[in-house]
Formats: sequence, structure tokens, C-alpha cells
Amino acid sequence: MTLKQQCQWAKKNASILAKLSSSEKNQALLKMKKALLQNTQYLLSENAKDIQNAKDQPNALIDRLTLTEKRIADMANGLETLISLPDPVGQTIEGWVRPNGLSISKIRVPIGVIGIVYEARPNVTVDAAGLCLKSGNAVVLRGSSTTLHSNQALVQVLKMAVDSTPFPKDAIQFIADTHRESVQELIKMNGILDLIIPRGGAGLIQSVVASATVPVIETGVGNCHIYIDQDADIEKAIPIVVNAKMSRPSVCNACETLLIHEKIAVKILPLLQTALQGVLLKGCPQTCDILPLTPATPEDWKTEYLDLILAIKIVKNVEEAVQHIQEYSSAHTEAILSENYSTIEYFLNSVDSTTLMVNASTRFTDGSEFGFGAEMGISTQKIHARGPIGLPELTTYKYIVRGTGQIRPS
Amino acid sequence: MTLKQQCQWAKKNASILAKLSSSEKNQALLKMKKALLQNTQYLLSENAKDIQNAKDQPNALIDRLTLTEKRIADMANGLETLISLPDPVGQTIEGWVRPNGLSISKIRVPIGVIGIVYEARPNVTVDAAGLCLKSGNAVVLRGSSTTLHSNQALVQVLKMAVDSTPFPKDAIQFIADTHRESVQELIKMNGILDLIIPRGGAGLIQSVVASATVPVIETGVGNCHIYIDQDADIEKAIPIVVNAKMSRPSVCNACETLLIHEKIAVKILPLLQTALQGVLLKGCPQTCDILPLTPATPEDWKTEYLDLILAIKIVKNVEEAVQHIQEYSSAHTEAILSENYSTIEYFLNSVDSTTLMVNASTRFTDGSEFGFGAEMGISTQKIHARGPIGLPELTTYKYIVRGTGQIRPS
Repeated sequence: MTLKQQCQWAKKNASILAKLSSSEKNQALLKMKKALLQNTQYLLSENAKDIQNAKDQPNALIDRLTLTEKRIADMANGLETLISLPDPVGQTIEGWVRPNGLSISKIRVPIGVIGIVYEARPNVTVDAAGLCLKSGNAVVLRGSSTTLHSNQALVQVLKMAVDSTPFPKDAIQFIADTHRESVQELIKMNGILDLIIPRGGAGLIQSVVASATVPVIETGVGNCHIYIDQDADIEKAIPIVVNAKMSRPSVCNACETLLIHEKIAVKILPLLQTALQGVLLKGCPQTCDILPLTPATPEDWKTEYLDLILAIKIVKNVEEAVQHIQEYSSAHTEAILSENYSTIEYFLNSVDSTTLMVNASTRFTDGSEFGFGAEMGISTQKIHARGPIGLPELTTYKYIVRGTGQIRPS
Repeated sequence: MTLKQQCQWAKKNASILAKLSSSEKNQALLKMKKALLQNTQYLLSENAKDIQNAKDQPNALIDRLTLTEKRIADMANGLETLISLPDPVGQTIEGWVRPNGLSISKIRVPIGVIGIVYEARPNVTVDAAGLCLKSGNAVVLRGSSTTLHSNQALVQVLKMAVDSTPFPKDAIQFIADTHRESVQELIKMNGILDLIIPRGGAGLIQSVVASATVPVIETGVGNCHIYIDQDADIEKAIPIVVNAKMSRPSVCNACETLLIHEKIAVKILPLLQTALQGVLLKGCPQTCDILPLTPATPEDWKTEYLDLILAIKIVKNVEEAVQHIQEYSSAHTEAILSENYSTIEYFLNSVDSTTLMVNASTRFTDGSEFGFGAEMGISTQKIHARGPIGLPELTTYKYIVRGTGQIRPS
């Protein structure tokens, strides 16, 4: 089949999937979960081929694409979580009656066919398939060449699991062609594909946004800030900064820049330096007057390091912190650490990012931490979905208007 | 100012507008309403220049761009309606507490800067400005050359009305450059513009969708169907078809194709022909066996006539009606006329269009008929907004997460 035929086939199956009951969808998810566990050895052996092919690649990439028994069990558990979540399809979002007696209901329905273009991580194959299935959408998966064997094996296991069930297994389509051209073709499949979600590095996302004619949800670039106010509780602040920077530096919700109120800087900076052992700290001139750090350049304020590096800037007050965030943030997640009510309210009302944290780690911006089960990515745009993309974000709605013969007056 | 500078200026003012209280925004709308009424003569005189320039254009175009005292009063009333509607900004959409004590709120916020590219009708200038203002968004207006004088005068009146009030009048930006290039530049203004809404003919919409890198909401193409079931009440059906076809044939919610169950065709077709005096009827072969009509070609099923023309097809049952709609509809609005519960439920569950009407005219798919006040257009895509775009559809949301020192376990 050509890529276009695959997408058309997905669309055909989408209309069958859209009509399945919740229990039929949950049964399919349960079978898929079991099949992943039962086929662990096969999945590991196929994954070994990808690892072998990637042996000259950076360790970080090899780590991302490597499957282990635990990682396969995690994927299976992700499917199990989806079973326990409410089915968004068919929910009445709102309903009202007009003065002329027309009764209007706004009903949640699947989007239709969703394409996802992603890099390296094979778990995205299972997460995306599971989320789309539960929300009644067909999915077109376009992974990267580095994980081709793993992805193919995963899709094969998922589809075989639901063979001879009411679930239309071809609502899951896998694009084996990993040339760039297949992405370019996919993102212009208007009338067949309803949505494209790129999930990966900034380069991938920008190339999709630049050329797509199908609607896109951008995901993932996170230049996240923590502002430590003069009224912060230092006992809470230090562990939060350590968690936000060090617990998993390669992810989009890790903290990249720390803004510190000038009145607390002298006290907290040495404590932070001790706590952040192993992190390369870069400082503004004022910071460097307190600690002998690598000087930060203007480029640092813009950078998503995705690494054990942290830029530090001392600010006069919360207003300057907000200004800095407005200028440099990617509008993913920002945190304020403070015990002062008015300062916190000012921050929450002034900063317009996907998620604002008060006295909590930026690492909590995440589908499972929000209670959404898995996620299709974290949207950093304002249209359709913002923040973690879970089941409801993978739906749209239609209006049903029940009348008794009404006509519209001219 | 260059177009880019205008958009940047809109963005700067958007952040002021986003923080205004509902009463400040309502006061601005009230002043604008009064100013439109007070400056009616000036608006008419500027509009006369556009009418003069358009004297060699088709009558339909001249009609669309002509202002009258009544049309100006209607625009003023539209602003008044917006005052009475709830302010969407700041609404808590959802809120919940996680097992670790994090309290998550999903709060409605403005989108930011919205561009609208539109044709001919000057009322869009006022509707779009009013809707964006009330929902806290800056708006960049790009009308057509045919209404340049009218649009400029309207924007001037609106902005003067709020001079020396807290309302940042430059949150309304008008693009006087009506060359095609200005649209092309506008729709690639990523990082400044958050959304583009094209409102006009299919050509305009397709050219925006093809080239935009800013997120787009497509509006308006309506190839709407009415299915008259064998169990339809003929007394209700005839007035509904007449209303849907004849009350305003040039709009997107007018009916273009009528599907009739074969068991009711012989009885209802002659009645329809009499009731639809002045409408050119085109029929499928079976229809032409009953009435001597112009034969419909396959092209007719795809056509949005926007005129006093109606295509008629006889179908075996509701399943065939649904199939026809799935193949040819633009997924705007479809109606079923029936008294049979199961047939209606089948139709509602099987057709995936923006709006499905039961025993009511397709003409009701409209922001004001839905109770939304004015509308920015009717979205026929599935992402972000579907159907009439009112105030809530012009917002996004952010998450506020309140903690007490939580960190994320690795």
C-alpha cells in the first residue's frame, strides 16, 4: 500500500472504531496489554537489532531506544491505566434549550485520523496507539529509522492481539518508510488526516510546522523557569530546584533557568551550589559576584539545555522575574517559590505559560502526574490543546439540535 | 508601521487587554456601540466611496458591502449583546486534587493575538473586534480592498470611542495594505500571531490553509443536506426545506442537496416543487421519473450552489442517505426530518458533521441562533473549535498547580 492508501484505510477503519462501545475498546486494550507481556522476549530480540544498528550513536540515543523487561511492563501498565479512565466519546459537554424550543447538545466525538511523527522512543508507539484507540481515533504512526525494528514488532504484537475481535485493527497504521519525504507527504494529507502531532526535537517540530497543511499541535520545547522569591521557604526551595534540574535533565519539564530575588540570593546561592553537585552553573554578573561561576551569556537565557546545566539570574523583584520569563520562556512551565500571597497571585496572573507551579517542581507538568494516564506529548501552543495531551484533548465535538419543526425567521 | 510592527504592537497591547476586568471591557463595548450610532452619517459617507468604486461589480458583492442605517444599528446591537454575555476569561474549567496533594486548576485565558482575513462584509470588522475585545484578545483585521473606506472608518470610530479609557485601543490593528502579499506575510507571523481565521470564499480559505504556518481555523464551506425520511411529517418538512433553501441562499448554512426516502418521494415531490417556486431543481434519474427536472450530474452532489438551486436524490433508506452525506458533505450541517426514533438515532450516531438537526432548518447553525451573540465564523474543521465560533472558542487555558513543596519521585 502507498502511504496515501494507508491513511485512507485508517480513515475507513476510524468510522468503525468511532462506534465501538467503551467495553469493546477496553477489551482490546486489555488484550494488547497481555500480548505485550507475553511477547516480551520477541520484542527484546527485535529491539536488539535497533541497538546493534545504533552502536555508533550517542549513549543518550541508545538509552532512549533501548527496551528492557521493565520498560515493556511500563508500557503494558500504561494501557491498563487507560482502561480505568473514563471514555471521553459520547460525553455531553454542554446542553441548553433556546427560546424557540430548539434543544442543543454539544457531544464529544473522536477527531478521526491522527498522525504522529516521533523520534527514537518506542514507548510512544504503544502510548499513542492506546490513547488514540481509547478516544476512538485511528492513528498513523511514523517513527524514526533508529527504532524501526522495535516499532514494527510492537505494532505487530498490538494488532495480532485484537485479531478476530470487533476492534478494527487497521485503525492502527504504521509507516515503515522512514525517509524524510514520508513525513512531508503525511503532513499534507488534508481531507484524510485530521491532525498531526510532531513529538521530538525542535528541528522535527519546526519542519512539520513550516510545511504542514493538516492542523498541527506543537509539542515539547521547554525552557522552564523557577523564580525563588524573597519570601520563599528555603527548606522547600532547595529540594524543588534539585528535583526540577537533576531528576531527569533531558526532558522538557526540567528547569533551565533559575531567577532569584536579590534579597535572598546571598543566603540561598551557596546552599544551592552544594545541593546541585554535578550541575554546571552559569551566572549573571550579580550571581558571579556571590559565587565564582561561569558567566552566562544572553544566549543562555534562551537555551533549553536538556542537560546538567543551569543558568542563574538575580532579579530585583517578581516584576523583573515575570519580564524575564515573558521575554525568554517557551511558555511550557514556570514555578514560583514563595509564601507571599500577593506575590504569588501577581505571578499567576501575569505569566501566560501552559502550566504555572506554586511551591512545586516543574517536573509535574506531565500527563500521568496530572492524572491523564499516558500523554501524546505536551502542547506548547494555544490552539486546541495546551499542556499534557490526554484523552479529552484527542476528541472534538458535534452539536445535535433537536427540534419540532422550527424554521428560522428572516 | 510595517505589518510586522503592527502585529508586535497588537501583542504588546494584548497583555494589557488580558488583564482588564469584565466591567472595563463592557464599558469599552458600550462606548463603541454608542459611537457607531452617533457616527452613522460619517460611516455611510465613507461606505458610499466603496459603493462608488464597486459600481461595475456584481450586485451580490455591492449588496454585501453596502451599509445602511439598519445595518449599522445591527452592528451596534451585536456589541450590546456581547456586553450581556458572560466573560469567558478567568473561568475555572475544571479543578481537582492529586493524591500527592497538588491542587490543579484549568483556567480559561485569552488566546493572545488573533488575525482575521475577510472579504467584502464590513460588519465582520465590528463583530470580530467586539468578540476579540470581550474575550481579551488583540485582533489584527485584514479586510478586502472593496471595503477599505468602510473598514477604516469603522475602526477609526471604534478606537476613538475608547480613547482615554483603560482599554488599550491599539489591541485593535487594521491592515490597510490589501495586496495579496499582506495576507501571505500575516499567516506566517509565528511567535506574534497565535491564530488566523480566514472568513470568506473557498479560494481565500484554501490559500490561507495551504501557506499558513500560524494555526488556522477553517470556516464556512457548507454543502448542507436535508434527508426526508419515510416517516417524516410532511407538514413540518415542506416549510423546513423552503426555509433552508430560500430564506437566504447565499449563506453557508443554506441547504444544497435534498435526500428523499423512496417511499415518500412520489407524495412529497410535487408538494416541494410547488413550495419551492423560483428554485431551480435538479434531480437524480429516479426523481426525474417523478418530476420533469433538470438531470443532476455527479458534480451537483459536490456543489455548494449559494444560489436558488437545489439538487434532489431519492435514496432507498437512511443508510444510503448517510452514505451519500459521508461521501459528498463538507461536514457543516445536515438535517433529518423524521418521526421515527430509531432512524433518527442512527442518523445522529452515523453522521459526523459540525451540526446535526432533527426536524429543524439547517439555517439554525449560527452563533446568534445558538445564543453565542456574534460569531467569528463557523468552523468546519475538527481542531480547537467546531461549528459557530463564539467567545469561549476564542480562549485557551492554562493550568495552575498549587503545591506545598512537592517534588516528583524519579
